[in-house]
Amino acid sequence: MAPTVDQQQETTTTTGNFSSDDLKALCRAIEPEDAAIRQQAQARLDNLTKPRGSLGKLEMLAARTCAITGRLDCHLSRKVILTFAADHGVTEEGVSIFPPEVTCQMIHNFLGGGAGVNVLARHAGAEVRVIDVGAAGDVEAPGLIKRKVRPGTANIAKGPAMSEDEALAAIRVGIDSARDAIADGAGILGTGEMGIGNTTPSAALFAALLPVPVGQVTGLGTGLDERARQHKVRVIEQALAVNQARLARPLTALAAVGGLEIAAICGVILEAAKSRVPVVVDGFISSAGALAAMRLQPLARDYCFFSHMSAEQGHKIFFAEMELEPLLHLDLRLGEGTGAALAMGLMEAGLKIMNEMATFDEAGVSPSEN
Amino acid sequence: MAPTVDQQQETTTTTGNFSSDDLKALCRAIEPEDAAIRQQAQARLDNLTKPRGSLGKLEMLAARTCAITGRLDCHLSRKVILTFAADHGVTEEGVSIFPPEVTCQMIHNFLGGGAGVNVLARHAGAEVRVIDVGAAGDVEAPGLIKRKVRPGTANIAKGPAMSEDEALAAIRVGIDSARDAIADGAGILGTGEMGIGNTTPSAALFAALLPVPVGQVTGLGTGLDERARQHKVRVIEQALAVNQARLARPLTALAAVGGLEIAAICGVILEAAKSRVPVVVDGFISSAGALAAMRLQPLARDYCFFSHMSAEQGHKIFFAEMELEPLLHLDLRLGEGTGAALAMGLMEAGLKIMNEMATFDEAGVSPSEN
Repeated sequence: MAPTVDQQQETTTTTGNFSSDDLKALCRAIEPEDAAIRQQAQARLDNLTKPRGSLGKLEMLAARTCAITGRLDCHLSRKVILTFAADHGVTEEGVSIFPPEVTCQMIHNFLGGGAGVNVLARHAGAEVRVIDVGAAGDVEAPGLIKRKVRPGTANIAKGPAMSEDEALAAIRVGIDSARDAIADGAGILGTGEMGIGNTTPSAALFAALLPVPVGQVTGLGTGLDERARQHKVRVIEQALAVNQARLARPLTALAAVGGLEIAAICGVILEAAKSRVPVVVDGFISSAGALAAMRLQPLARDYCFFSHMSAEQGHKIFFAEMELEPLLHLDLRLGEGTGAALAMGLMEAGLKIMNEMATFDEAGVSPSEN
Repeated sequence: MAPTVDQQQETTTTTGNFSSDDLKALCRAIEPEDAAIRQQAQARLDNLTKPRGSLGKLEMLAARTCAITGRLDCHLSRKVILTFAADHGVTEEGVSIFPPEVTCQMIHNFLGGGAGVNVLARHAGAEVRVIDVGAAGDVEAPGLIKRKVRPGTANIAKGPAMSEDEALAAIRVGIDSARDAIADGAGILGTGEMGIGNTTPSAALFAALLPVPVGQVTGLGTGLDERARQHKVRVIEQALAVNQARLARPLTALAAVGGLEIAAICGVILEAAKSRVPVVVDGFISSAGALAAMRLQPLARDYCFFSHMSAEQGHKIFFAEMELEPLLHLDLRLGEGTGAALAMGLMEAGLKIMNEMATFDEAGVSPSEN
């Protein structure tokens, strides 16, 4: 493991290095969803007291969750949102209207229960776990999971964000966090993040891995104006130029222009997919992590539920290019896992439809004529 | 009151007639939302630990709910979905793939807790009240609110669905149902309906009151094929031709080509607006009731939250013509109040954001530079 990994982590265990071969082995262990169970789930849904398909995407959510878990009697049980915090050297280029110290301040806010994700997770009956995978400052707070790989990335406009070993270590943090949550009984995971400046590496990753022109995936972040957005486009174009040689493969691209929380989210998704646990992807930044995961192993897609279409320009490009559809369209652009929390409520609703609605026979209702 | 009104109703009280003058008085009693409270609510939202506006429509939901209730410390408390059942004489034209007796069978299913709306209401922590405002059959079931105005409408393809007095009586059933729920502590109401064939009168009302061509607002209902849809278009065109003289005013149009449950929903919305209680409008059929309410009193719009864009063709025309935006896009087309139940969860999430999130000061988080 890279020497920059913080050895003080308290609540998860890491043994030995995590190599690119280990990553390949994890990807090879991921299997497609269970198509037979999906058909059986849809057959059950079709026999419930409603016109066929009339609960639209709720039915899809239920059938997909059954196909993922391989069970028809599927309950989400414990719901856990994993919120990874990290900083970004590229903030020195003036790409955010918030100062970098807000990342650490928000970690305290998460642990105090006052942030958006806390409120929406409580509403959904989900637990929030906060993992420091790369905040620039030292944070000591009860409940914080300390897995700092390095104190923020380097400035991507001047070179790679981190080494490949560091990216692997951050992926490993995500894997461990997912594994721990599943061991604790989580039946569904949500991704979340906090990192001032992190729409910039996310846009860089979309541009590199979709691939699409930088301008299409670069938005206003937490509140830039159009002139500042143009500057951000130039910074990202410079980052892609400086790191050009590293952009051909997903892992090296993630290390070159990504972020520590983005790499951790990539790890969560791969581990959830391997473990056949549904994972709800939050917004723009989480989607960058999901894109890296899907480029490493396209089957990871089967396990991801994309919670919402962010107001951040470029998210729609991601969905269009990947032929994916988000669940919610609420103009959210907060991150943290807020969209994942809302979408978990819909997924639970879909499963309850499957598990609790009466069939035509049970209710004595006449089926349709066709 | 029309002599066809069932006097056996058990759980609500109706005294005297409800005339068109009474309806006008109710409409005059509706005031606009409180713009000053809405501004104060947005100011509080802007001071929470998130970039301004970054919770998008959740913030709008919270601010609008404050503006409706006139309170900044706003909680939804008890949530009640009012599901009105009624039958439609136009089913004899072959406009639905389900037989009309399903309306009564589904009333039993609602009261047994096995229908879609029951499952989703339980998920949202909402109560479902089932009101027979015009089922064709006699239904006796514990918990049913019996307010039958007449046993189904007449066939709109051959004449008016009901008399103006009957339409007023059905509106009154909605008013009473809303008033009773509010008296019982409901802080938010949802609309719902059950009525085999009721996309047909709904499409007729959209065509008459928006107004738009019939073909644009006539869809597949619970599962017609394209040929059957074309037949449905012709039936509705005939209904509009036969009832031409009655389509100029909203009340007479509602009586001529509407339905008893649609009129009741119109009444719920007007009473909720008068009482400054937010009302969540379900899908295609509920929107027809909402359209009638908004044509009777345009200010009713301030009190309505449109839960979702139905998969039923024509719902998007309604939203476009009225310049309204639905909350969810889940391809639902079940009705009953299922979309209202899901949207109530989002509205509660928005209010919790308002009430539970920490401010920048409280959390010691640095605000943005602009």
